[in-house]
Amino acid sequence: MEIRKIEGGGITTPRGFLAGACYAAIKSRKTEKPDVAVLYSEAPCAAAACFTTNKFCAAPVLLGREVLKKGKARAIVINSGNANAATGEQGIKDAKAVELAAEEALGLGEDEVFVCSTGVIGQRLPYEKVIEGVRRIVPTLSREQGTDAAWAICTTDLVRKEVAYELKLSGGTVLIGAMAKGSGMIHPNMATMLVYITTDAKIAAADLQPILFAAVDKSFNMTTVDGDTSTNDSCFLLANGLSGIEIKTEEDKAAFAELVDAICTDMARRIASDGEGATHLIEVEAYGLPTEKDARLVARSIAGSTLFKAAVFGRDANWGRIMAAAGYSGADVDPTRADCIIKSAAGEVQVMENGFGTNFSEELAKKVLTEHDITVIVRFYQGDGQAKAWGCDLTYDYVKINGDYRT
Amino acid sequence: MEIRKIEGGGITTPRGFLAGACYAAIKSRKTEKPDVAVLYSEAPCAAAACFTTNKFCAAPVLLGREVLKKGKARAIVINSGNANAATGEQGIKDAKAVELAAEEALGLGEDEVFVCSTGVIGQRLPYEKVIEGVRRIVPTLSREQGTDAAWAICTTDLVRKEVAYELKLSGGTVLIGAMAKGSGMIHPNMATMLVYITTDAKIAAADLQPILFAAVDKSFNMTTVDGDTSTNDSCFLLANGLSGIEIKTEEDKAAFAELVDAICTDMARRIASDGEGATHLIEVEAYGLPTEKDARLVARSIAGSTLFKAAVFGRDANWGRIMAAAGYSGADVDPTRADCIIKSAAGEVQVMENGFGTNFSEELAKKVLTEHDITVIVRFYQGDGQAKAWGCDLTYDYVKINGDYRT
Repeated sequence: MEIRKIEGGGITTPRGFLAGACYAAIKSRKTEKPDVAVLYSEAPCAAAACFTTNKFCAAPVLLGREVLKKGKARAIVINSGNANAATGEQGIKDAKAVELAAEEALGLGEDEVFVCSTGVIGQRLPYEKVIEGVRRIVPTLSREQGTDAAWAICTTDLVRKEVAYELKLSGGTVLIGAMAKGSGMIHPNMATMLVYITTDAKIAAADLQPILFAAVDKSFNMTTVDGDTSTNDSCFLLANGLSGIEIKTEEDKAAFAELVDAICTDMARRIASDGEGATHLIEVEAYGLPTEKDARLVARSIAGSTLFKAAVFGRDANWGRIMAAAGYSGADVDPTRADCIIKSAAGEVQVMENGFGTNFSEELAKKVLTEHDITVIVRFYQGDGQAKAWGCDLTYDYVKINGDYRT
Repeated sequence: MEIRKIEGGGITTPRGFLAGACYAAIKSRKTEKPDVAVLYSEAPCAAAACFTTNKFCAAPVLLGREVLKKGKARAIVINSGNANAATGEQGIKDAKAVELAAEEALGLGEDEVFVCSTGVIGQRLPYEKVIEGVRRIVPTLSREQGTDAAWAICTTDLVRKEVAYELKLSGGTVLIGAMAKGSGMIHPNMATMLVYITTDAKIAAADLQPILFAAVDKSFNMTTVDGDTSTNDSCFLLANGLSGIEIKTEEDKAAFAELVDAICTDMARRIASDGEGATHLIEVEAYGLPTEKDARLVARSIAGSTLFKAAVFGRDANWGRIMAAAGYSGADVDPTRADCIIKSAAGEVQVMENGFGTNFSEELAKKVLTEHDITVIVRFYQGDGQAKAWGCDLTYDYVKINGDYRT
C-alpha cells in the first residue's frame, strides 16, 4: 500500500468532516476541560461499528446497535464524564433524547446520529447539559476543531490520540483520519475505548463492516490495561465518499483494509502506552503455537498478567511470570521447548532457551527494562500460530487513579 | 455435623502426625526464616491431592501426580524460597532427588513422599540444601512443631494459617488439622497456595479424592488475589486412620466432607485476606443466576476486577465497576433487573436496585468500606444459581511487593 502520513492530521482531515467541542459541565467544574464533542459529515456516510461485548453495555451502545442496522450515519455526539451505563430504561431514554436533539440541531432525520458516552458508570446522564452543549457546538463546527474533539472525548487520558493518512488507490488518493480515547478499563472485547475513523473514500457499508471487524480483532481486542472490559467500548468507521474515489477493486479494498488495520494497531498501542499510571508500553509477540487462537491467548495472557506488569514497573526481568502466564492462558502450550526474549531500544536479553532459564546478565536486563517501550517475544515450536498483544505496567499511580476516581 | 474447634491446633493435632522445620539457606540470608518443612505420619495414609491447572506446572507437581496414582503416602517435604518451576528435566531430577533422600532419611519406600516447592520461578532448586535440611529435621520430628512447619512454607505471607477441629462421627470422634500458605499469584485453578489437611480418620483413598475435589472447587478455585494462576498450587489430604474410627456410612461421609469444605473455605478466606499488600478481604456472593456456573463466573469476575479492587482500597463504593465485572464475566446475566448490596460489620448499603443505581449515602458507604472484611452481594432474578468468591483489594503495597520480588 502506498501511504503518506499527514502531520497534525485527525478526524477532520478527510474531506467533508467537521468537528466541534465545548465544556458542558458534565465533568467536574475543577478543570473545565471540554466534555462534549460533535463529529459531522457534510454528506451521508456508509457506517460500520464494533461495540463492547459486556452484557452490562451502556445505553448509547444499545442505541448505536439500532442506528447501525441501517448502515449509514451523518454525525456522532460524544460526551465524557458520564458513561450512561447501568442506568436502565431511563438511560436509553436519555441517550435517545440526545440523539433526537442532535438530529434536530443538525437538520438530520432520525437514526442518523450515533451517541457515545464515557466516564463514571451508574449515574444518570445529565442529558440536558449534553444537549445544551451540542446546540452550542453545531454553529461552530469546522475542520479546525478536530483536535478539540480529540481532547473532549478523553477521561483519564494524558495524551490525545489522533492520526491521518493519505492512501493512493487505483482511481486516485483518499484520506483517512482517526481519533481515540482510552486509558483505564482497557481489556479485550473491547476496552474502555472510543475510536472514530473517518474517510472520504466511497465504499459500501457492507464492505466497510468486515474491514473494521478484522482490524478491531487484531488491535483493540489484543490490548489490555487492567483486565476490565468496559460497558461502553465502541469503534466507528464512517465513509462519506466526498473524494469521489470509489473502492471497488480487490486491490484497493486490500490496501484500504491494510491501512485501517495499521491505524487501529497504532491507536491500540497508544491506548496501552497511555494506560492509567503506566510507565511502560508492553508489546508481546507469540510465535510457533499450534493455532492463531492459541497464540492470541498466550499473547493476551502475558500482556495482562498482573504479576508480570508489576515486575516490569520494578524493571525486574522476572520471566518466570511470563511463562506462568503462558501456562494458565488456556492455550495449548508445550513448556518443555520454549524461548523467551525481552528487548527494547536499549538491547535484548534471552531469558529462556529451550524451556530453561539462561544465565542472562541482570544488569543488561535492567537496562533493557529502563526503556518506555518493551517487547516480550515468546517462541514455541508447535506450529505456525502467531499473534501480538499490547499492555502496560502496573504502577502505584494506577492504584492511586483508580482508588479514588469517582468521588 | 457436630464439631469442636481446637484452639492452637494444626496439622499435627490428628493422632500420629509429626512435623519439623528448619532454615536451610534457600531463602535469602537476610531473614533466616525457616524454609524447609517435613510433615510425617506414623502410619501409612490414604492420600488425595489437587494440583494446579497451569501448563507450566512445576517439577514437584509433575512428580506429585505420579505419587498420587498409588493413592497413599507417608510424608510431605516442602521448601519455600524456590518454586522449582520452569526448570525443565533438571527440575524433575532435582525434585526426585529430594524425594528419594527424604524416603531414605525417613526409612520409607519409593513414592511414599510428596515434595512441594514455592517461591521464585525459573531458578534451579538448590536440592542439596533441601536434602541437608530434611536430614536435620527428621530426628527432631514432633507434634509440637506443627506451627514451625506452618511458618516454613510461607513466602510473602504475613500470617501463618493453621486450624484443627474435632468431628463427632457415628463410631467416635476424629481429628482434622490443616495448614496453608498463599498470598500472591492467587487465582482460581488454583492459586499459589499450598494446603495440607491431615486426619486420623480411616477412609479409603477412593472416597477421599472426590471429597477433596469438591471442597477445592468451592473454596480455593473461587479465590483470587491477582488473576495469576500459579505453577505450583497443590492441596493435599492425608488420612492415617490412627483414631481407629472408620468413615463408612453416608452420614459420616457427608459430615466429614462438610468439615473438609469448611476448612478449605476458611483457608481460602485467610489466603485472600493475607493477599499481597491487601488491606481488605472481599467476599462476593452471587444469587439468582440461571446456573451455578453462571454464578461462579459472576462472583469470581467481581472478586478479581482490578478496577473494583482499587476502588475498595480507596473506600469508594464504585458499584458500576461491580456490575461491569458481572457483565464481562461470560455469564448469562440480565442487567435490567439486578440488585447490589455492599456490607460489612459497620453496616450495609444497597447501591443498586432493579438494575438502577440508588441514592445511597456516600458517607455510610465510606464507613462500610472502612472495615477490613467487606461483603458484596449481587442478586439477579434469573434462576437458582449461587456462588461465593473471595479476593482482596489492590494496593500500593501489592505493586511494591511485586515490582521487586525477585532481585
